[in-house]
Amino acid sequence: MAVAVFSRQTLLNTKTEYSHMILVLKKVSLLIMKNLNQYIDHTLLKPTATENDIKKLCEEALEYQFYSVCVNSGYVAFAKAQLEQSNVKVCSVVGFPLGAMSTQAKVMEANKAIVDGADEIDMVINIGRLKSENFDAVWKEIEMVKKVIGNKVLKVILETCYLDKAEIIKASELAMLSGADFVKTSTGFGTRGATFEDVQLMKSAVKDQVKIKASGGIRDRFTALEYIALGVERIGTSSGIDIVTNKNTENEHTY
Amino acid sequence: MAVAVFSRQTLLNTKTEYSHMILVLKKVSLLIMKNLNQYIDHTLLKPTATENDIKKLCEEALEYQFYSVCVNSGYVAFAKAQLEQSNVKVCSVVGFPLGAMSTQAKVMEANKAIVDGADEIDMVINIGRLKSENFDAVWKEIEMVKKVIGNKVLKVILETCYLDKAEIIKASELAMLSGADFVKTSTGFGTRGATFEDVQLMKSAVKDQVKIKASGGIRDRFTALEYIALGVERIGTSSGIDIVTNKNTENEHTY
Repeated sequence: MAVAVFSRQTLLNTKTEYSHMILVLKKVSLLIMKNLNQYIDHTLLKPTATENDIKKLCEEALEYQFYSVCVNSGYVAFAKAQLEQSNVKVCSVVGFPLGAMSTQAKVMEANKAIVDGADEIDMVINIGRLKSENFDAVWKEIEMVKKVIGNKVLKVILETCYLDKAEIIKASELAMLSGADFVKTSTGFGTRGATFEDVQLMKSAVKDQVKIKASGGIRDRFTALEYIALGVERIGTSSGIDIVTNKNTENEHTY
Repeated sequence: MAVAVFSRQTLLNTKTEYSHMILVLKKVSLLIMKNLNQYIDHTLLKPTATENDIKKLCEEALEYQFYSVCVNSGYVAFAKAQLEQSNVKVCSVVGFPLGAMSTQAKVMEANKAIVDGADEIDMVINIGRLKSENFDAVWKEIEMVKKVIGNKVLKVILETCYLDKAEIIKASELAMLSGADFVKTSTGFGTRGATFEDVQLMKSAVKDQVKIKASGGIRDRFTALEYIALGVERIGTSSGIDIVTNKNTENEHTY
């Protein structure tokens, strides 16, 4: 039905424009893919991770030039020592993964992580207080962590698997108002990781004022690109090497 | 063959002694069962737990006179307020559940929990450092937490699901040498909870110098009694009411 309203010339133009659009998209996608490593927080948060595991994580981050390594706060100083005189940043989780510790504990953990050399802090929101609709407790905590880390980057993990739609939007807004630089979907320790729907909800709440990090279950290049297409600016994953080498999806998708 | 060496009199004596033993055991078991509530740390550590959930936990602890409520550190002050002028203690987890945060973060979290009114601290051992055989990091951390909490009770969670037998023994010894009051099996967030074998290994390492808390998956009275028979002096569970009311095992076991 819709086609009938276009003249032949319009259809031709549309076809040309469509081809042109595809070409542009391909070029932009190639640019992003060349730079895909810089979207990745190369992540190892298992409680059993040894010093050697963290060393390997840092070596991989250096080799593939990932944006950062993301580790538990107990390994920040160790990771920083491995990455000295490189551009690879160190990202520390805080209040992880339950987000249920005292505000002071989160603030002190963040402070110590920065002292130990962290460039970015991924803190977990207090989910229980959010669900209690004690919003003051939630945003004040975020603000206090932001204050203690100064100009370092703060990502606020919402743990979307436990939240309904209204809670995802509310949590995004609270993080935005409290000075967060990013809102982040997941810890990877909840009942599921990121979904496209979660990211869309977060984006609708924070617009372009706060960046978005997607994490949890992102294991191949095409999925990573789908998140980037939704406006995600950082991806937390332990599959960074597979993503940049296109290991899992080789010969399946071409750009 | 063994029977042949006993005379008839001996056998009769043995039978009498056996009956007597059963009677004694029944009486002792009854005493323990009357007191079973005092073995229970009534536990709610889910990240989604609301203020109302914690309030209910405290009300139940008051009603059944459990030894304590066990909560995340962000709820210590709130729980303490519910339990004022009662004998029910407040137990706070620290470095929970991964145990991978910085030592300073654990120390500060423990300190704040005590300030907020906690009577006992259940801290998670640094599992990654243990597996790295960096034992100094492990015991020094425990010692620092013990120092900051003074005469309050320190339980050290080994998270046995991730440890082999030698690691369970080593971790128990490190906790004992660092001044722990209890070694505890599990967080409830690992791949499994307590087992009898774990407890036996821990007991073999700490003898009677350190108490043992079993936790994770203990949901009925008979299982609780089996752990107590192995020497366990505290049980962490969210099924305390089922255990003391014998709900799950009614008419199955009689004592």
